[in-house]
Amino acid sequence: MSTTDPGTPGYWPAGHRSAVALAFDVDGPTGDAMLNGSIWRKPSYFALGAYGPHRALPRILDLLDEAGVSATFFTPAWVVETWPEACRTVVERGHEMAHHGYRHERYWDLEPDQQAEVIERSQRIFRDVLGAPAVGFRTPSGDWHPDTPRLLVEAGFTYSSSMRGDDRPYLHEVDGVVTPLVEIPGRWDLDDYASLAYTRNPDYPAGQDRIASYELTLDNWIREFDGSHAEGLCMTTLFHPKVSGKPGRLLLLERFLTHMRSGDDVWFATCREVAEWWSRTAAPVVPQRGGQHV
Amino acid sequence: MSTTDPGTPGYWPAGHRSAVALAFDVDGPTGDAMLNGSIWRKPSYFALGAYGPHRALPRILDLLDEAGVSATFFTPAWVVETWPEACRTVVERGHEMAHHGYRHERYWDLEPDQQAEVIERSQRIFRDVLGAPAVGFRTPSGDWHPDTPRLLVEAGFTYSSSMRGDDRPYLHEVDGVVTPLVEIPGRWDLDDYASLAYTRNPDYPAGQDRIASYELTLDNWIREFDGSHAEGLCMTTLFHPKVSGKPGRLLLLERFLTHMRSGDDVWFATCREVAEWWSRTAAPVVPQRGGQHV
Amino acid sequence: MSTTDPGTPGYWPAGHRSAVALAFDVDGPTGDAMLNGSIWRKPSYFALGAYGPHRALPRILDLLDEAGVSATFFTPAWVVETWPEACRTVVERGHEMAHHGYRHERYWDLEPDQQAEVIERSQRIFRDVLGAPAVGFRTPSGDWHPDTPRLLVEAGFTYSSSMRGDDRPYLHEVDGVVTPLVEIPGRWDLDDYASLAYTRNPDYPAGQDRIASYELTLDNWIREFDGSHAEGLCMTTLFHPKVSGKPGRLLLLERFLTHMRSGDDVWFATCREVAEWWSRTAAPVVPQRGGQHV
Amino acid sequence: MSTTDPGTPGYWPAGHRSAVALAFDVDGPTGDAMLNGSIWRKPSYFALGAYGPHRALPRILDLLDEAGVSATFFTPAWVVETWPEACRTVVERGHEMAHHGYRHERYWDLEPDQQAEVIERSQRIFRDVLGAPAVGFRTPSGDWHPDTPRLLVEAGFTYSSSMRGDDRPYLHEVDGVVTPLVEIPGRWDLDDYASLAYTRNPDYPAGQDRIASYELTLDNWIREFDGSHAEGLCMTTLFHPKVSGKPGRLLLLERFLTHMRSGDDVWFATCREVAEWWSRTAAPVVPQRGGQHV
Repeated sequence: MSTTDPGTPGYWPAGHRSAVALAFDVDGPTGDAMLNGSIWRKPSYFALGAYGPHRALPRILDLLDEAGVSATFFTPAWVVETWPEACRTVVERGHEMAHHGYRHERYWDLEPDQQAEVIERSQRIFRDVLGAPAVGFRTPSGDWHPDTPRLLVEAGFTYSSSMRGDDRPYLHEVDGVVTPLVEIPGRWDLDDYASLAYTRNPDYPAGQDRIASYELTLDNWIREFDGSHAEGLCMTTLFHPKVSGKPGRLLLLERFLTHMRSGDDVWFATCREVAEWWSRTAAPVVPQRGGQHV
Repeated sequence: MSTTDPGTPGYWPAGHRSAVALAFDVDGPTGDAMLNGSIWRKPSYFALGAYGPHRALPRILDLLDEAGVSATFFTPAWVVETWPEACRTVVERGHEMAHHGYRHERYWDLEPDQQAEVIERSQRIFRDVLGAPAVGFRTPSGDWHPDTPRLLVEAGFTYSSSMRGDDRPYLHEVDGVVTPLVEIPGRWDLDDYASLAYTRNPDYPAGQDRIASYELTLDNWIREFDGSHAEGLCMTTLFHPKVSGKPGRLLLLERFLTHMRSGDDVWFATCREVAEWWSRTAAPVVPQRGGQHV
Repeated sequence: MSTTDPGTPGYWPAGHRSAVALAFDVDGPTGDAMLNGSIWRKPSYFALGAYGPHRALPRILDLLDEAGVSATFFTPAWVVETWPEACRTVVERGHEMAHHGYRHERYWDLEPDQQAEVIERSQRIFRDVLGAPAVGFRTPSGDWHPDTPRLLVEAGFTYSSSMRGDDRPYLHEVDGVVTPLVEIPGRWDLDDYASLAYTRNPDYPAGQDRIASYELTLDNWIREFDGSHAEGLCMTTLFHPKVSGKPGRLLLLERFLTHMRSGDDVWFATCREVAEWWSRTAAPVVPQRGGQHV
Repeated sequence: MSTTDPGTPGYWPAGHRSAVALAFDVDGPTGDAMLNGSIWRKPSYFALGAYGPHRALPRILDLLDEAGVSATFFTPAWVVETWPEACRTVVERGHEMAHHGYRHERYWDLEPDQQAEVIERSQRIFRDVLGAPAVGFRTPSGDWHPDTPRLLVEAGFTYSSSMRGDDRPYLHEVDGVVTPLVEIPGRWDLDDYASLAYTRNPDYPAGQDRIASYELTLDNWIREFDGSHAEGLCMTTLFHPKVSGKPGRLLLLERFLTHMRSGDDVWFATCREVAEWWSRTAAPVVPQRGGQHV
């Protein structure tokens, strides 16, 4: 049990100053183009997505092995079905697999029963292929439906990493009542899509913006970590193997890890471990007020 | 009374070379998505906005305390209503609270009576929650209606910080007559949205452009200050707590403040103080010709 | 008369290695928003444009005086009408004023007689306000109508600086016949809009892209000059006072000028002087084939 | 015959660690604006495209001569027809000319018989102007039709460089059967359009994003090479003479080449040579699973 306040320097297990829950979204070729079917007429775009589980994921796993760090892999169940060996390897090498939709659905567009169906179907695949259901969830596309947290609680999830509005974990409320569902908020600033992803037809970014400088992207990430670490917060990432797991970019991740590991006061953990620690030690923290119509 | 010409080196109180009116727009979750209601189905986006008054504002206030600098906080009255304690703290710690719409309305889309209604409603909330009405106004979304300056004069405001077309204060005209309403023009170059803001669903920037390099953003800001200082001008900022008040970015503000304070010839003031000095010392300066249809 | 081949090192007057025709587009508030009338309801946007002739132009002129360099100012005649003193000063200080539409029209959208009307009206204003008609023309918005070169020849212009397809001057053809109209092609790479312009409502860039790093923008410009100088070419710029003539950006222009003047083998000239030299010394160079429908 | 595994360090001829198939797309003015006819009313835009074969291509060829490197030039047959001398020079100086559509068609928009027609027409032009048909193909616009690989096999092509989903060559399947058609996948990260191309009217990028820093673009490219070289992979480029063959940018290519040639263990080859080596030495590698509708 921590003796310091939740989300302040030294609060984390063994008195670590701050927490880092390294996380990757293994989207593969799922997403809007698969949901609307257009990907089946875009072989090049499909291959670009497949590069994630097919080529990039093994590099990421090797890198994490070398660094001795466990991470969380939010993976659409379609990817688990399509590359079962690659996904089983993630678990076997000590990492956590968690939900990210079946085909990277936009949860805010789905009715509650449709969301429940996606969750159930995905859990079934996780059980069949990986041997166990997931306890964690990250909403695809960065937002969700007002009913999603209730559905997650009902389905037995212990945490979500879907929101953007804090730099510490907190507990979700449903109908004004605090639930045991821990939120581990991410940030766009630590999403590699926001700096390095680039495709054409379909275009990403929509305005065909340039790929950012690799060096300056790393510099931004390091500053985000430094700020989070100084305040004793909990930082997670939204990295994607198909974006950052390329030969020319893996070095960025390696240098980022090296920077974060240069002291010995960072607690590297899976999201599941973060959620467990927070549940055990933090007094229920009510999230910021708001959400009701004025 | 200054003995030098308005807006030239040394004109400012006690012979300071130039003026800096540090200013923050505390938008919180107000804006287009609240005006059209979509934010109530986007919990993640709401939380990102709430991060401003909830988490980032206290950091900004601490930073300003350390630097010994007073600033102006343009705040939609909905935010004042929703986070009254946080907003009262701003005043208690010696800063100025000023108008920024009720829910960040686009003033150029509103009829004059609708604008007057937003202003009155906001003044009422300022009086109720903060104990005094505002004397300053910054138009949300960067432009306003041709009748807005008249409405501000009628409502007793002493200054606006809404325009982009000069680097010194000037007096607004209404129907060709110079009024006492001082304009303290801002610039897009010193708006952190233009470099660091990034959201998805809704997307900002519209083209999903990259987050700029933090280091190069600071470098640009420093050059803007250096140029303004060299010419003895008045510089204000359009910073947003939810954008720049994050752990990894606060250091930018700190370094920017350190740079500006490295000499002792900058007058740091609230916009209110700048307007008062300009009103007392500057001969009415007619703004650049134009505005009439040719 | 030059003894070396046109557009090769040493071809230029007095054996200068390369030519630089520094040029500014003094658009002021003209452009699409004035053509469609929306600017008259956007006072902030109007003021941003007015900043060019009102505040930025004098700085540019001082900078050029210090450097001892003459430049060309492509200026919509509406700006000449609206700020006549500022525009007369440009001529009095030894620079060239040239055409850029009346209100920054898109020439490819205009019928030939409409284009002729804009040209005549503008020449009348140039004669009335500046005492002489222009001999040079730069098409607003970067392209023109297939009939525009014919209209320019008929109206007595000696040069245009409108195209993007070469890095040396060349002579325009009309109906397959080479004319005396010299083209001094510009390039997007040396248009400060492409790196530093930023407005909101209306948005520029359309995707709300970031303002580029000032330092890296200068670095790009310097490389463009270095490449042009090495090959003995003719470089012109598409700089805008309202974009680059701000206090924090003027230093970029100063450093760019300092770099270009660090050797003594650059011929700085107005576009008019470049066109005269080219007409006198270069054998008619037929532009690249193409333009006909296949 | 290589004694190491395909696509690992040392696999390439004479034990070279990795392969680089430098490639340029000589689009000239072909592309969407030519396909829809709008380019014939945009002389400036046409000239910008013509700059590629007219002015930039000779610089690229000189640079490659100095470096002693052969490259592949994917060239729409319309460009071959319009600048036959320039294209013959490419072949005479030891480089490979290959297909890139007739007018840069979007293959995924064409029916199979239309694609076959474009291929046949282009082969006829290649034979007539260059003396031999092409054996290689790069799809314009980055993707193709599901039937395209079959059409290429039937037309006798030995390789394609059209996909984005791997960093080693592989063999294409048609109807589930591995064919002899070698794929040499490119990557958006090594497409100079993604960093340096910039036009207005029509706008590229769509969101009018900034031209990237030349220096940082080179830095990104170098990292991509370093990563590819470390793993012994095969890297190709999507450079465009009209984008990178300008005076101020040629130095980037020169420095990139210098970096890659600084060791002696890179195999520089045309795409044709890479395909031949892969066909002779690599066991058929089945591409990643996928493509079928689930």
